[in-house]
Amino acid sequence: MFFKTITLDITIFQAEFFKYKESQNLDRDPKNLYQPIRYILNLSGKKIRPVLTLMAANIFSGKFKMALPAAYAIEMFHNFTLVHDDIMDDAPLRRGKETVHEKWNLNTGILSGDAMLILAYQYFENYPAETFQKLAKLFSKTALEVCDGQQLDVDFETRNDVTIEEYITMISLKTSVLIGAALKMGAIVSEANETDAQNLYDFGLNLGIAFQLQDDYLDTYGNPETFGKQVGGDIIENKKTYLFLKALELAEPNDKNILHQLFQEKLDNNEDKISNTKIIFNKYDIPNHIKNQINDYSLKAFSVLELMQISDDAKKGLIDFGKALMTRNV
Amino acid sequence: MFFKTITLDITIFQAEFFKYKESQNLDRDPKNLYQPIRYILNLSGKKIRPVLTLMAANIFSGKFKMALPAAYAIEMFHNFTLVHDDIMDDAPLRRGKETVHEKWNLNTGILSGDAMLILAYQYFENYPAETFQKLAKLFSKTALEVCDGQQLDVDFETRNDVTIEEYITMISLKTSVLIGAALKMGAIVSEANETDAQNLYDFGLNLGIAFQLQDDYLDTYGNPETFGKQVGGDIIENKKTYLFLKALELAEPNDKNILHQLFQEKLDNNEDKISNTKIIFNKYDIPNHIKNQINDYSLKAFSVLELMQISDDAKKGLIDFGKALMTRNV
Repeated sequence: MFFKTITLDITIFQAEFFKYKESQNLDRDPKNLYQPIRYILNLSGKKIRPVLTLMAANIFSGKFKMALPAAYAIEMFHNFTLVHDDIMDDAPLRRGKETVHEKWNLNTGILSGDAMLILAYQYFENYPAETFQKLAKLFSKTALEVCDGQQLDVDFETRNDVTIEEYITMISLKTSVLIGAALKMGAIVSEANETDAQNLYDFGLNLGIAFQLQDDYLDTYGNPETFGKQVGGDIIENKKTYLFLKALELAEPNDKNILHQLFQEKLDNNEDKISNTKIIFNKYDIPNHIKNQINDYSLKAFSVLELMQISDDAKKGLIDFGKALMTRNV
Repeated sequence: MFFKTITLDITIFQAEFFKYKESQNLDRDPKNLYQPIRYILNLSGKKIRPVLTLMAANIFSGKFKMALPAAYAIEMFHNFTLVHDDIMDDAPLRRGKETVHEKWNLNTGILSGDAMLILAYQYFENYPAETFQKLAKLFSKTALEVCDGQQLDVDFETRNDVTIEEYITMISLKTSVLIGAALKMGAIVSEANETDAQNLYDFGLNLGIAFQLQDDYLDTYGNPETFGKQVGGDIIENKKTYLFLKALELAEPNDKNILHQLFQEKLDNNEDKISNTKIIFNKYDIPNHIKNQINDYSLKAFSVLELMQISDDAKKGLIDFGKALMTRNV
């Protein structure tokens, strides 16, 4: 029975999650507060984080449905960050649709986001006191780290001395800790031992870093037809990603100056900017440097699994998921 | 011993709270996230909410210091609402100093506020699992109600059919539930029985409504020399307070039209607007109507205390505090 559930396709987790999501009544008053929440939650998405929570719960107890409220809390929190981040980035679109503050207004974006953060905590109330405390504690720690990461991201925009180490810290906080926490929550709900739960967290953390670095790579080198966002977007926005920081680290003074110049202004026609930047990136073999880093973090993630007291099938399931995540549309 | 602590002056609670507050290390990185938090927490204020938490804990166990983390959570949350509300109201000043989004910027205001909401939850981690869950549950419920109240307040700005009942609901949610929750948290920490804890909540809720209605009264009829804000501010801002709504309810059609006209625009010179509005308020005896309401809610608050299994000294302490709150600078 246990091994049978372990091999479930992740589409089952997705389907169960959508079913749970639909069953949650957010059709409340005041309408102007809860409509935007339903709107953002209904924008499509792969639901990677809640699926990870269910998958982890399944590994340790076979009872993944127990983890649905925790998975929903994670998804609610993730969407809270999207709503507030979109305000901070002044983003007009999210997954091809109007962002909340664009469709409604700034105040609605702030207030609906706040309510989502609180709603996320409320979903932990579905668990007994001990589990509740463990979940809420991990959640608060993680949520604060995500705020720290977002602040570092903002700070980096106006700094010219960001190191690669600092950059990795920033992406860890901003995105990877939530992947780790999503997995660990599944383990907590299924009462896994603390060592396994922490190892699973580390798996997620490292996989999350690899994933984010790959996002950096694809943003410049991805296939425009399959990459979800505009290829070259980070260069257009002067974003100091791993590619840029590694190039600055390796480039000769003259190329360094060119890079700094290229990343100073925002232009109407960006074709030259993108191609000139890529010439420098390629000259210093940056695509290979980032691929090596992605590989290192992926391997680090997979090697943590070897320490865990779980079935080989479970490990294979996690590795398969990790690989599927890492082999999207290059 | 118990009766000795009961009669403590509230200045003792204030002093202990300030001591605890100073001991909390918020000198963290990233600086741009935590500096604004320290700034808003250090703006002066009477600390009514945390004092109520300590006072309630003292009543039920005599050990009010146990309640310091919960009191701090309440204060942190209250300040989170101030930071986000000031953005929504586009307010330049708070307690005579620049608001966070003015002193820094919009993004800092949003993000620091988010972090404060999470920090508030973290302070409940100082309690054992059962207490933690009770506190966090009450906190989430209350925090969401405060969001609902804030949304209703925003909605009322553009509605012309707000009833007095709806207005009372709005102020209950926006401000009074937090007064009730502050008291109930003290009771929870001291393991009071549920009936007493709930009665104390109801005392706070009703006192909070009386307090807010008095704020409405003082905003128009207060002494400019002792009232902290600009007298007439609500009239200048066209705020639909109890005074305005009651006047609309009682006024003859002609006076109703005048009131609607007066509350349509924002002017540079508001002296005439204020005096003309007051003429109508006075014609329909609105000051007495609101005074009766304030009195009714105060009495309702005090009568709940009679149901409680606490000492007469404790009841007297709560009544004295309530009366002190209600007899400020008329």
